[in-house]
Amino acid sequence: MRSHYCGQVDEILSGQEVSVAGWVHRRRDHGGVIFVDLRDREGLLQIVFDPDAREIFQDAERLRGEFCVRIRGLVRPRPPGTANAALASGQVEVLARELEILSRAETPPFHHDEAANEELRLKYRYLDLRREVMQKRLRLRHRVTRAMRDYLDEQGYIDIETPMLTKATPEGARDYLVPSRTHAGQFFALPQSPQLFKQLLMMSGFDRYYQIVRCFRDEDLRAERQPEFTQLDIETSFMSEEQIMQHMEALICSIFATVLGDELPAPFPRITYAEAMRRYGSDKPDLRIDLELVDVADLVRDCEFKVFAAPAANPQGRVAALRVPQGGVRMTRKEIDDCTAFVGRYGAKGLAYVKVNELAKGRDGLQSPILKFLSDAAIEGILTRAAAADGDLIFFGADTAKVVNDSLGALRIKLGHDLGMAQTGWRPLWVVDFPMFEWDADAKRWVALHHPFTAPRCEDAAELRADPANAISKGYDMVLNGSEIGGGSVRIHRPDMQSAVFDLLGIGPEEAQQKFGFLLEALKYGTPPHGGIAFGLDRIVMFMAGTDSIRDVIAFPKTQTAADLLTNAPTPVSEEQLKELYIRVRLPVKVG
Amino acid sequence: MRSHYCGQVDEILSGQEVSVAGWVHRRRDHGGVIFVDLRDREGLLQIVFDPDAREIFQDAERLRGEFCVRIRGLVRPRPPGTANAALASGQVEVLARELEILSRAETPPFHHDEAANEELRLKYRYLDLRREVMQKRLRLRHRVTRAMRDYLDEQGYIDIETPMLTKATPEGARDYLVPSRTHAGQFFALPQSPQLFKQLLMMSGFDRYYQIVRCFRDEDLRAERQPEFTQLDIETSFMSEEQIMQHMEALICSIFATVLGDELPAPFPRITYAEAMRRYGSDKPDLRIDLELVDVADLVRDCEFKVFAAPAANPQGRVAALRVPQGGVRMTRKEIDDCTAFVGRYGAKGLAYVKVNELAKGRDGLQSPILKFLSDAAIEGILTRAAAADGDLIFFGADTAKVVNDSLGALRIKLGHDLGMAQTGWRPLWVVDFPMFEWDADAKRWVALHHPFTAPRCEDAAELRADPANAISKGYDMVLNGSEIGGGSVRIHRPDMQSAVFDLLGIGPEEAQQKFGFLLEALKYGTPPHGGIAFGLDRIVMFMAGTDSIRDVIAFPKTQTAADLLTNAPTPVSEEQLKELYIRVRLPVKVG
Repeated sequence: MRSHYCGQVDEILSGQEVSVAGWVHRRRDHGGVIFVDLRDREGLLQIVFDPDAREIFQDAERLRGEFCVRIRGLVRPRPPGTANAALASGQVEVLARELEILSRAETPPFHHDEAANEELRLKYRYLDLRREVMQKRLRLRHRVTRAMRDYLDEQGYIDIETPMLTKATPEGARDYLVPSRTHAGQFFALPQSPQLFKQLLMMSGFDRYYQIVRCFRDEDLRAERQPEFTQLDIETSFMSEEQIMQHMEALICSIFATVLGDELPAPFPRITYAEAMRRYGSDKPDLRIDLELVDVADLVRDCEFKVFAAPAANPQGRVAALRVPQGGVRMTRKEIDDCTAFVGRYGAKGLAYVKVNELAKGRDGLQSPILKFLSDAAIEGILTRAAAADGDLIFFGADTAKVVNDSLGALRIKLGHDLGMAQTGWRPLWVVDFPMFEWDADAKRWVALHHPFTAPRCEDAAELRADPANAISKGYDMVLNGSEIGGGSVRIHRPDMQSAVFDLLGIGPEEAQQKFGFLLEALKYGTPPHGGIAFGLDRIVMFMAGTDSIRDVIAFPKTQTAADLLTNAPTPVSEEQLKELYIRVRLPVKVG
Repeated sequence: MRSHYCGQVDEILSGQEVSVAGWVHRRRDHGGVIFVDLRDREGLLQIVFDPDAREIFQDAERLRGEFCVRIRGLVRPRPPGTANAALASGQVEVLARELEILSRAETPPFHHDEAANEELRLKYRYLDLRREVMQKRLRLRHRVTRAMRDYLDEQGYIDIETPMLTKATPEGARDYLVPSRTHAGQFFALPQSPQLFKQLLMMSGFDRYYQIVRCFRDEDLRAERQPEFTQLDIETSFMSEEQIMQHMEALICSIFATVLGDELPAPFPRITYAEAMRRYGSDKPDLRIDLELVDVADLVRDCEFKVFAAPAANPQGRVAALRVPQGGVRMTRKEIDDCTAFVGRYGAKGLAYVKVNELAKGRDGLQSPILKFLSDAAIEGILTRAAAADGDLIFFGADTAKVVNDSLGALRIKLGHDLGMAQTGWRPLWVVDFPMFEWDADAKRWVALHHPFTAPRCEDAAELRADPANAISKGYDMVLNGSEIGGGSVRIHRPDMQSAVFDLLGIGPEEAQQKFGFLLEALKYGTPPHGGIAFGLDRIVMFMAGTDSIRDVIAFPKTQTAADLLTNAPTPVSEEQLKELYIRVRLPVKVG
């Protein structure tokens, strides 16, 4: 039906006849002539319908936006002065000799309109995807996965598919469940990740595995989450933490180079989890922003200001300062107040600050309601540690370490962007030396910071049991511009260590056997040292596409309530279907 | 940890030191020396432990089968006469200088033993996958998908992911359902295929789409089915049936050439559905077998033998003969009787036959209990039509067309193999011109032979409504050696035709709106002519691997009852989980 894509017709074809097919992007009637911009995935092409070709012209008069047509015609240069340099086909036009209307279109609910609201865009996703920017994004996604495969295939990684109907695993989120028809009352779970299967593949001796694989988490959805998402999942054997990280860094560098032509600043800096929290209040610091937190607890522990002194004396507390260069000059009183409201969302009960007007004047050169509570030594210590200069503003966080980190960490990002202090470009890094465990004060038990299969640094199970609080894991996260784009670890490959970790996590021998019996059994048969990583494909493509929503790089995404507005899923199902699956619905009881 | 894979150490490295890591495949103690065949994914390597290196030797004495170890040692030629030509590393051995036991192994439940029963192989899949043949199969699978992607990327196809949590679609099998937590009492379905999404992608203008994608069918499992399976899913716009078939044929030829170096006999022969049923009793004929069915109803319609005469006179009936060359000589009486039992499984109530001893003798040269019922003319007609020769055996099927086709079609395959009449090699073909509809006599309604989105040959909806029984679809199946490996069609791209097909299938306007409203809506906005195909990846790889079970080419397959013996899925889940999903279990009531 077609000899060329619209976007590929250019002056080289002048004088030749071509057949093209696509959509009426725009129609203009001008001087008795009909001009149609015909669109296909490769671009636009101007078609001219001359009134002298009466029959075709009559058909052309019926054309409306988004009609799908096939056209045969003569390529000719556009008249002087009418070329369009923005189009690959902009030097030429096609004089139509044959027109076939393949299918008509009603007036679309929106027309290539970036500003259409997202609900409408999702309901008519097939129209939204006709937009050039969306076509580019999904084609970029394909180039990214292609580049990943090329690199990994070249390096001897084997693409192996793992099951989707699998056993519930404890990855920290709710599972999507699938009732079984052949096993009454039992359920499969959709995988939160192929974690255990890829470990089993290492036990099988495949040595290097990858898969671009769909994963599922039934979470309360945040902006950057989808109930189903795609990860580049990788596992290797006989490699150290260091080797895996080098390998994975090279992979990501190669992809950015191949797809975007961008050189990432390698080697990526590495910072420990502890340092990341200390300096940035976050385990995924955005290095494009130069602001840093500094600890001042030791300076204010004995001051009269209880808001500072109490957390400073608490082992779980933190008192930190965030210097905003020239913040005292650049920020209005209202903007400063807004910051107080902002950190409130992260649990901070207030936001003390000191304005540095003129250092040379000592106390008198400073401006702050809290000055009176602080000794000269404390003030000087803070100013020195924060490296304060005239015109700066210093914010303080004083609370539990978690609240201080969350609130000042977020404030750091906000101010970096608001005050135009964020650098452009790519700032990747590795965060390493994560603690093995975090104490869950509510549940009164240890929880795994990565997952229960992550290996600790120490080789000895008894050593781990003796001091879980200080155990460091062989985990690593790759962070790009303030977002975790990949996370992984060396795994436990010995059954005694795996049992010890289950124990510490409060998974008793019986539960361990029931849930992970197959893993504990598999570990008995000569398991190689192994480790790996999982990259969030959606997020990586989102970054590369320069958009801020993963919904923009997924063909058919779901809404925040996990609904598909296009097909209208989920839906009720028939009683017979439920019966076959041995389940029944229990609707929530309406109160009142 | 490793400088080389075991299988890559060869005489070029003689005199050098290497580090290798892998599994103890075999250990032999011979003349005071310990020999270990070390295995990794690339092959075996002989390691020698000399008793003079006492410390290492002591460690080596602890080695058992499947221990995972790292070894550093000196590559040296094997002593004269001890080379092993079967191994890439067979000219050399490594004299161990360092041995690290990375992890121990208990005695495995089976040891590289092809004959282990499948249940055990599935339970200890990670051990089963250590076998060389399994490693090769899964690596072959990767090479196949790689070849598919290379070809399609080259041809401008775009790899686009479609949702897994989607709306129930009527693809002829049961859906796997996923209860929604955010929409009480509602369910997602796992896709039986991305059919409607790929059509929507054509409506979005992507023009050429592919995806290697997991699909789900909750069927009663047959040998070649898995609850989850993988297909190569393809869709294109602006191409005719003919162009799509040529394209897809070229794709498959390219894959067989790239991966196996095999040239498929192209162009693939094409036969119509009607001809396939007539000559082979099957819409997926195995062309490696030269036997064919011939119709003889017209010859026996008036005979006294009611078993023949009744189906011969019935428009739904069929009377056919299957000539087995030299069957009268080669088959024993017992073998012939076994055939009667065999066709019984397909519903045939008997299996009449005529033995052709000596044609020249006329009636007297034949041997059969049914001869007495047949006129000379009928006998002569049958012999001529079947092209009978001395020594042949002619079987008859007489029943409904379905029973005759099923039973003689299966008998044809069985005898072809049993009597060694099947050719070797690849015999692909296209089956085309499928009927649009089949009459379901039980349900008293038309059902779609492909799916409800398949376009009919006729362009006019009124024409289709007028004579659905004779409507031919634009569907096509690719068949290889008696198995359907791909199936597809040109799709309906106009809303009036789609509505007509829904109508004919008994899907009223309301139901159509509820189930396919989004499709009918999408068809209004300039839908391009489009079509595609889906190939069964598991089956294609199974063929290429030369095995007869798709479980052999799936890393973690399920059993016939849709269970995963390795992880023990499915499992019961907690009451809290069910509550959150607004469902409860109803177990079957035990009777008695």
